[in-house]
Order: sequence, then C-alpha cells, then structure tokens
Amino acid sequence: MSGNNETPLPNKYENFNKWYNEILQRAELVDLRYGVKGFVVYRPNSAMIMRQVYRFFEEELDKLKHAPCIFPVVIPLEFFKKEAQHIKGFLDEVFWVTRAGQHDLNKPLLLRPTSETAMYPLYAFWIRSYKDLPLKLYQSNSVYRYETKATKPLLRGREFFWIEAHCAHRTREDAELQVLEDMKVMSRALHEVLGVPFMLLERPPWDRFAGADKTYAFDVLFPDRSVLQIATTHVLGENFSRAFEIMYKDEDGELKYVQQTCFGIGVSRILATLISVHGDEYGLVLPFDVAPTQVVIVPILFKENGEAVMEKCRVIFERLRERGYRVVLDDSDERPGAKFYQWELIGVPVRVEIGPRDIEKGVVTLFRRDTRERMAVAEGELEGKIEELRKDILRVLRERGERWLEENLKEIGSKEALMELARRGGIGKMPFCGREECAGEIKAMTGGFEVRGVRVGEKWGNLGICAVCGNEAKQVVYIAKPY
Amino acid sequence: MSGNNETPLPNKYENFNKWYNEILQRAELVDLRYGVKGFVVYRPNSAMIMRQVYRFFEEELDKLKHAPCIFPVVIPLEFFKKEAQHIKGFLDEVFWVTRAGQHDLNKPLLLRPTSETAMYPLYAFWIRSYKDLPLKLYQSNSVYRYETKATKPLLRGREFFWIEAHCAHRTREDAELQVLEDMKVMSRALHEVLGVPFMLLERPPWDRFAGADKTYAFDVLFPDRSVLQIATTHVLGENFSRAFEIMYKDEDGELKYVQQTCFGIGVSRILATLISVHGDEYGLVLPFDVAPTQVVIVPILFKENGEAVMEKCRVIFERLRERGYRVVLDDSDERPGAKFYQWELIGVPVRVEIGPRDIEKGVVTLFRRDTRERMAVAEGELEGKIEELRKDILRVLRERGERWLEENLKEIGSKEALMELARRGGIGKMPFCGREECAGEIKAMTGGFEVRGVRVGEKWGNLGICAVCGNEAKQVVYIAKPY
Repeated sequence: MSGNNETPLPNKYENFNKWYNEILQRAELVDLRYGVKGFVVYRPNSAMIMRQVYRFFEEELDKLKHAPCIFPVVIPLEFFKKEAQHIKGFLDEVFWVTRAGQHDLNKPLLLRPTSETAMYPLYAFWIRSYKDLPLKLYQSNSVYRYETKATKPLLRGREFFWIEAHCAHRTREDAELQVLEDMKVMSRALHEVLGVPFMLLERPPWDRFAGADKTYAFDVLFPDRSVLQIATTHVLGENFSRAFEIMYKDEDGELKYVQQTCFGIGVSRILATLISVHGDEYGLVLPFDVAPTQVVIVPILFKENGEAVMEKCRVIFERLRERGYRVVLDDSDERPGAKFYQWELIGVPVRVEIGPRDIEKGVVTLFRRDTRERMAVAEGELEGKIEELRKDILRVLRERGERWLEENLKEIGSKEALMELARRGGIGKMPFCGREECAGEIKAMTGGFEVRGVRVGEKWGNLGICAVCGNEAKQVVYIAKPY
Repeated sequence: MSGNNETPLPNKYENFNKWYNEILQRAELVDLRYGVKGFVVYRPNSAMIMRQVYRFFEEELDKLKHAPCIFPVVIPLEFFKKEAQHIKGFLDEVFWVTRAGQHDLNKPLLLRPTSETAMYPLYAFWIRSYKDLPLKLYQSNSVYRYETKATKPLLRGREFFWIEAHCAHRTREDAELQVLEDMKVMSRALHEVLGVPFMLLERPPWDRFAGADKTYAFDVLFPDRSVLQIATTHVLGENFSRAFEIMYKDEDGELKYVQQTCFGIGVSRILATLISVHGDEYGLVLPFDVAPTQVVIVPILFKENGEAVMEKCRVIFERLRERGYRVVLDDSDERPGAKFYQWELIGVPVRVEIGPRDIEKGVVTLFRRDTRERMAVAEGELEGKIEELRKDILRVLRERGERWLEENLKEIGSKEALMELARRGGIGKMPFCGREECAGEIKAMTGGFEVRGVRVGEKWGNLGICAVCGNEAKQVVYIAKPY
C-alpha cells in the first residue's frame, strides 16, 4: 500500500493505452511479466471479478436448463479435422502438443481453440432419440489461440477465459429460438448487471464463426473508440451434426440430424470491458452485482472513542454480511485516506465511513464510487440506501456508456465520411451493398475498419446507395475498428 | 431414463472395478470414450459435484486469507528448470507444446504439471518487504501429467482437477504453521463435510514432492483395499526461494529468502472418493453439504387430487428454496418409481414424497438415501428434520468408512504378515528401520505395496525391530498399495 498521494491516472479518453496499462498495474489486476507472449497472470483483484462474472452467468445458464460439463483441454487431430470449414478457420491458430516426457506422441494433440470438435463426437454417443433433445451443455474454461495480431492483455491474448455453451435441438426453429435466448441472456446481463451498452450485430457471411450458418456478436465501444467483441452466438445448423453424425430418431421413426447452436461468453473480455468502460482516473468502478467486495466499512478513528467506533463498525459489518452483501471491514492500521485510495482504486462501489460524529448523530457516511459523492444516511436506513445505490450506480454507469456510444456513432454516406471515421474512430452506420469486395475496400482505405454487420432488429426504410461503390444498398451496416 | 427395473450394481467390496466402471456409466458421471488415453469427459452429474467441492474449499481458503489467482497453463522451459530436484521429478511426466499454427515455437512450452515454477518467478517480483508477507495465493485449475502407470478414470489420469495453494512466509515457523493450517482445512473437510475417514501421513524422504523438505499426505482407503492420495501439503523451505530468488527485506534491514509451502487438494480425486467410499448398489450416496441437489420433491399423483398434490409440492419447494437448500421439484411425467430410481442413482441425500394421504395427515414422507429409510414427518417440522438428517447422514457415512478402515488396518510384525497383507489388501502398520532399501524390498516382495509414511501426531512406545530387515525400528509406518 502506497498511501493516497499517488497522482490520478491519465484521462482514459485522451490516452487509453497509457491509462489501461497503468490501471492494470496499479490496481494489481494482471501482471505482464510472465514471459510468454499473449499469456498473462491474473492477480487476485482480477481473478475475483472473473469469479463473480462466471458465477453470474453460470446461474443464468442453469436457470435456463443448461448443465455444466468439463471436456479435456486437448483435442485429437482426427476429431478436429472432421468439419471442413472449422479446421480451415482454426488451423493457423492452434497450439500443438507433440511430445510427452521424453517421447514424441504417436498422434499430435491440439489445445482447444474452442470445443465443438471435442464435444460433438460425444454428442453423437449421447443423443439417440428426440427424447434426448434439447441437449444444452456448457463449460467454464480457457481456450488457446495463437493470435498473430498484436496481443493486448485481456482484450486479445493467446489464452482466454470464457463460457462456451453448446446446444443440440430437434428443429431449425428450436435452434433459432436458442440463439434468441442466448441473445437475451447476454443483453440482460450487459444491461441489467454489467451496465455496459453494446451493439448486437449479425456478422456478414465472410466474418462468421468457422462452421456457422449465422453469427451474432456483441460489440462494445472502448474509450479509444475501437470495438471489442465480447460474446457471440451461432446457428450451426447441420454443419457439425453431419460431420460428426449426430442423429436422433424422431417421433415419426426417422433418423434426423440435430440442429446445433453454440454461444461463447468472453469472461476475460468482460473483465477488460468492466475495467475500460467504467474505470476513471481513480481506478476501477465496478457495478454492484459483480463487485467482489460490494461494501467496505472504514472506521474513522481518533484518539478518543476508538472502541465505540470499532464496535459500531463491527455491528454494521455483521448486519450487512447477514443481509448477504460481500462486505469487508478494513480494520488495518493505515490512515483513512490511504484506505480510501486503495478501495477506490479497485472499484468497490459503496464505502461506509463511521466516525465518532456519525455515531453521535445516529448516521453513517456513505461514499459511492461512481460519482465519488458522500452522503449521510440514518443508520436504520442503511440497507435501503445501499439497495437504492445498487440500482443507481448501474444507471449512472449505463448512461455514461450510452452517451459515449451515441457521441461516437456517425452516419456514413460517402467515402469522405468513411475516411473521417477512420481518423476519428468510433462506429459508422452506413448503407451497404452487401459485397465482401466492398468490405475489403473499406478495410484497406481506412487501415482496419471492418463491416461488423447489421444490427439485430433494426428496421430499414429507403436504403439508397452503398456509400463505397455506389451500387444499390441492400442493408445498413455498422463499421468499426476491432481489437 | 430407463425406468426402475434396472438390476442393482455389483457389490463394490467384492468387485470394485466392475462396480466403479458401471456406476460411472450408469449415473452418467464420466464418459471414457474421448479417445485420448488418460483424459475423460466430465458429464453434468460429476461436473456439478466438482463445482460444490471447489466452492466449499474456495470459501474455506478465502476465510483463511488466501486469495485466488490464475496463472497460464503453459510454463516456459527456463522457469521450469530453475529448481533442480523439481525438474528431475517431473521431466518424464510433462506434455510439451512445440508448435503453433504452422510453425515450430522458438522455445518449447510445457503444460503445467503443477504451478510452482509458473508462480514463483512472479513471487520474486511481488515480494519486496516483510510487509508483503505472508503471500497466500491459490488457483482452481487442471494440471497435466503424462502418467506412465495404468490410468484409471478420476483416480489416476493425465488431466486432473485440483486447487493448488502456494504460500510464502517470513520464517520457517510460519511455514510450519501454514502446513498445520492446511492439514486442519483438509481434515475438517473430510471429517465434517465429506464424511471420509483418512490417514494423514508424513511421507518418507524418498517419496516427497520434488523440491520439498517435508510432505504430508491424505490417504483414503478404497473398497478394493487400495489407497488413494487425495491431498498433500509440503514444506518447501528455501528450496524454491533460492532457485527463484524470492527475497524480502526484513524489519532488521536484511535481505532474506522467503519460507514456502504448497498445498494441493485433488478435486477430481475427491469426486472419485465420494463415488467409491460412499456409493452402494443403488448408485451414489452424497453427503448433504456437497450434493448438487440436496433435496428432491416427488409428487405422488393419482387421478384425483392431482392439483392439490402439485400445489403442496410447489409450496414446499418454495419454502426449502428460500431456506437456501438446493432443491428440485421433479414434475416430469415419469412414474414415481422411475423417479426414485434416478434420484437415488445420483445420490440425492433427501427425498420428499408428497401424496394425497400425506396431505390428509398433514405430513410429508422423507426418504434418506444413505440408509434408504422412509419416515413420515409433520409438515411443520420438515426443515428441522432435514437439518437433523444433514448431520445424521454425515455421521452414518463417516462411521461406515471408519469401520472399513478399522477392519482393514492390521499390525504387521513379520514378512509373513506382509505377504498376508499383500494377498488381502488394506493397510499395514509396521515397525520400520526407516531405510529406503527396506521400502524397496517391501514393494518388490508384495508387488507394489509402499511405505506411505508415519502417521502425523502418533506417539510410539517401544518400537522393537523392523519387520523386514530385523534392524532396530526407528518409527511406525503405514504400508498400502496406492493407485
């Protein structure tokens, strides 16, 4: 602990890279000195946030009748190569395990880049009849991709942490409904728990997941005006079930291929998002529901009345703990200012300060991390006020994010406007012909801006012409530079 | 679901292998058809038990001021080879990642067989002063060991799931106290939560963890009279801190090496233990506290009064859920008998049956899985009775296990008695000279029985002579055949 005389962090909108690297280090989130490119060490402050995020999504999936499972980290080559598009998409990205002990393996194994080809051979064993459907399984695990682009901690690494849910359904309609359910889970989490505005986009055909018929993705706008994909859900249709021969006997006695979907929730990317979208010059700002510590109690001690203050703090601590809050009583020897600095740095949403004057008045002092406001609250109203803050912190964070998204979303009607987007960053909304060539031209002329797809549920009026080629526009797409 | 007309499983004491393989399959615990030796698929029924075991131990460690962290699955060779004994112990067991995409890696990486050499280079960065100590971090993860012995699902595999806790302390005394704390955590868990009797042994010098000064291990006796090591804690002393230069400036201004310990809790092995030690001819029998479903409610429906029964079931379900139990209301269309069979198979500790006659009498029928007894309980006393059962099921399971351990623990005073132990299986208690040569002779003559070490806390009287070589005995050791 280094006291409260640290200078604030840089402004994240002005110098995101500097801010990001500094907050990772100062808040002791990840350590970049592991010595293997693309692999980082998650320190307790980030591991505890990831645990909350994992638990939240696991509970959501459990409620929707998914069940957890664990598949091996290694995939045998013969499984991996069964689906032609899939292996084409991933072959340049996989890590190979070729030796064990002093021996070469007869058959090389790969570290899973995603688990379709690990799981689906077993789905073929497990699914026999329509009564076995739907099969909805998920794994909370890490996957390995040999990223050739520049890596960036938590945003783009070679080891990342996620949940992958894989469903097998009876009909195409059921599969489409599953993907809708996945979208709802993720939208609700972002809106009602994480407070992160997003764009839900259907990716263009050339940017689909390898082996998918349709890919839907959640993009989040970062403070440097680039976007990060934090979750995807895919209609796989019969592409994998044909390759892996996953068939069921239907009620009519006929053997049919299952209709599949898969859903990936990027937990380490959600961590990056929480840090980046909500953080400020004082450190992290965490939404209440996923904060590892939701409330910290800091005694304000003077020479006299020390024991009365500590006693009150312990009583309040017990009260909040029994209410189910994740609460810490900071009874260390640091000065209050140093404590404030540290707890703000790691984003604890609510601080309770209790000093002799508070006790005299029958109040406690609350500090909310999001707005950094202090307020006195009657002791008896503490829990009610915390519940109020839980909601209001979420609202404030979400509204800040929404403002950022709005400010950086521009209509694009010409190549000049595209070049302006490329200079300024952010997201462009543009009438588009739908052709991959045109997307390639956009990427080349802007130095990396991509057609991220059409917004799910958006209705179009008169589309006019594609802002790039001048041909008839078929859709409205969103354009941004991804990590 | 296949109805309740399945034949019971074999007797586990008479044919453990058959019983074990059949329960794994019938209770849908793990699938052995993954096609890579030593790697299995954890189906929901086992993944959910592992989750409960993980959460229990994570909470225990958190309470004792450990903090979670996540290190990469790959370890660079230069880290791995720093501690001489450690690399010697593990080099024949590691999986090597040598290629990525289409390229050979410049520096090969290994899949962690354990994380000392991943974590301690960072400990050297993080620890500067005595104020940084103790550092107590743990990881919940999987490790990879190329086992050359026969593999057996969950008992001995090439991928296993565990918690590894790594502590750095200021003094040797603190490190020794840490190991005592680890022993208490594990003993308490086995005794008060898992209901599994154990032997806590200090391993002989030749069987220590590679790089440890002292190794303490928890052995559990299985139904086939072999033993499984399910947890270990080690005093590492300065062996790793010297190799990795982990030093701190003490209060006296001097630079000193930290004193280290590490503690491994085998979660997939605990799963194997719960299955094997508690299971019976009807399937799993789970202790209440780690059962994924603690209470299942089965409505007993007749043509009439169906809605009243369902309504009562829903009310009871809500009541138990609000009390914090993991409870399921089985409202599927199966017959009650088929439901009973399935829920017994996966070891749900308490079943609540509610039919029209129960409602008339104001009672519910409780079924406890451990003794398979039914009892009527007044509706108002349900929660109290469940709490009583929670404790009593634990007691019954523990006492069964204790009886098994006692029955199979024999004093060994001669080579003949050793050979008898080898024929019969179980654990031998023997005066021993303490020499590795003698342990080697025991292993050779018995076909694999090992000196597992001295029992922690055991007091010896007059030791007499070593039962093998006839030299003066220095200790009393326990001898068993490990998995």
